Amino acid sequence: MTNHGWVLETRPVEKLDANCLAWREVPLPAVEAGSVRVKTLMLSLDPTNRIWAGPTESYMPPVPLGTVMRGIAVGVVEESQDAGLRVGDVVQGMIGWQERAVLPGAALNLLPKGVTPEQWFGVFGHIGLTAYFGLLEVGQAKAGETLVVSAAAGAVGSLVGQIGKILGMRVVGIAGGAEKCKWIVEELGFDAAIDYKSEKVGKRLGELCPNGIDVDFENVGGEIMDACLARLALRGRVVLCGMISQYNATTVPDGPKNLANILMQRGRIEGFIVLDYLGRAAEAFGKVEEWVAAGKLKFATDVVMGLENAPTALDRLFSGANRGKLMVRVGEISS
Amino acid sequence: MTNHGWVLETRPVEKLDANCLAWREVPLPAVEAGSVRVKTLMLSLDPTNRIWAGPTESYMPPVPLGTVMRGIAVGVVEESQDAGLRVGDVVQGMIGWQERAVLPGAALNLLPKGVTPEQWFGVFGHIGLTAYFGLLEVGQAKAGETLVVSAAAGAVGSLVGQIGKILGMRVVGIAGGAEKCKWIVEELGFDAAIDYKSEKVGKRLGELCPNGIDVDFENVGGEIMDACLARLALRGRVVLCGMISQYNATTVPDGPKNLANILMQRGRIEGFIVLDYLGRAAEAFGKVEEWVAAGKLKFATDVVMGLENAPTALDRLFSGANRGKLMVRVGEISS
Repeated sequence: MTNHGWVLETRPVEKLDANCLAWREVPLPAVEAGSVRVKTLMLSLDPTNRIWAGPTESYMPPVPLGTVMRGIAVGVVEESQDAGLRVGDVVQGMIGWQERAVLPGAALNLLPKGVTPEQWFGVFGHIGLTAYFGLLEVGQAKAGETLVVSAAAGAVGSLVGQIGKILGMRVVGIAGGAEKCKWIVEELGFDAAIDYKSEKVGKRLGELCPNGIDVDFENVGGEIMDACLARLALRGRVVLCGMISQYNATTVPDGPKNLANILMQRGRIEGFIVLDYLGRAAEAFGKVEEWVAAGKLKFATDVVMGLENAPTALDRLFSGANRGKLMVRVGEISS
Repeated sequence: MTNHGWVLETRPVEKLDANCLAWREVPLPAVEAGSVRVKTLMLSLDPTNRIWAGPTESYMPPVPLGTVMRGIAVGVVEESQDAGLRVGDVVQGMIGWQERAVLPGAALNLLPKGVTPEQWFGVFGHIGLTAYFGLLEVGQAKAGETLVVSAAAGAVGSLVGQIGKILGMRVVGIAGGAEKCKWIVEELGFDAAIDYKSEKVGKRLGELCPNGIDVDFENVGGEIMDACLARLALRGRVVLCGMISQYNATTVPDGPKNLANILMQRGRIEGFIVLDYLGRAAEAFGKVEEWVAAGKLKFATDVVMGLENAPTALDRLFSGANRGKLMVRVGEISS
């Protein structure tokens, strides 16, 4: 039983790519009591992969050098010594950037029946939880308020904006390029879009949010976040979900210049990691399932074929090439 | 009945001083029904005076040019056409930087019996409310946690640190100079002090807060706040009460470089203006009174004599010359 995967050889200086990752044969341990062997079907690529590869203890320890790159994936159980899982079960977990993995059964979750890996990563899994709990719990979003979402055509952002509309908010998305802007307004129902590649974000925010921003669902950080801070409404909330503009930075970026507005507006910036809400996943799942079934919550997926392409594909998140959820098709159930 | 005061003539470029304020005779309107005339006894000088004098709508409109500088003061009622106030009553309100004012009675609050203007501004008035609600409500401070207070020998900071000790926290104060550091530790009971003028704040915070900072009561902003952000504990809270390091800035200062740590630690930065808590003043007053009476909460005052010295005195807040609450003695009851 051979297994290949991407091993983190050195810490990334800028991009996490094939300069720091090596494609290697990775030995698989024996399947002992309580463990299962899974074959990887679909690998989720997320901005946080870049954080995990860095040298700093963040909300998780760094991926140790010389080990398989950490990643969330969906796999199918090929062999089981765990009473809770059977061969053929489709599961999610920290399978990593590899073709197969041996893991404790307790570290894996069954996918709901009838949900494909694309659907799971696109709307139901950690992305859906992030959008749901970030907006409702951290953002305390309310009907009638103005919501701004950055990386609005990305996996999380595209769901956040639609949930904002379901809640009865005015929703402005910030995205890169005319095509994405058109998509979030015409297909997803955002009230307006700002193309940060061709428009002045601050000026447009001023025009589109005349009463200020009640919730900034922040996926980008840097200048875009700063433009939102400057226009925060009284008691506005910044859900600090991601700062993708900074993860590849080679020097420490300047912070936002408009932090004083948080003071003046009695605003709040709150950091948010979806891991803290895994225990409440069922609550979000129920609502997301209902909204998807009703046609109120749409999602797009950007599926790259082949694990060997994972490092190149990851850069799509940082260049803004992806629309919707980026993932890599690694294997098939039947093959 | 002559009246003099400091009139804001031009917006400050850097300091709010006699370059923008002019000492003038200020006419007093007649005392109509519902109004009173007060004679100013004590003027509170606060960092926020600098904000009010600036051109920007902050949490209050800017002081209009050509009008008396806005300020909180204690005065004595000299004439009353308001049923709720009598001649001789000692009151607090937005009397401004002038010898006398005519104001609606409803805009003034009686000082509690037996409380002097020094005591009022030093510990019971807006300063006490700021320390109390900022630490307990915004900071959600809990026994056993680590609290860092900047401007720790200032009016608010010195109270915040002591309330932290009353609550059972570990308290580290950041202040300027050996004398202030000695005072907050030896007299006020802080666990430790960092002299930002002679020590490396970040390095010392690392040594003194080995488990990170649970609450940063932030009065300073800039590099000191940034050093705290870098060392925030899991779910740490930054009570953004003031950013005095930036109010005199002539260019927009860089923001904190360590904001990403708010994300990683699921931390929170929350802006706080004490005005929002005036309706709950009695609640704080009761506790503060109890702590002062028990000798658990000490306060220092820095009283400058004469309203003509107010602009010069204000700079003591920005140069860090004051210890405890800065105020100006304007008049006496009997004179």
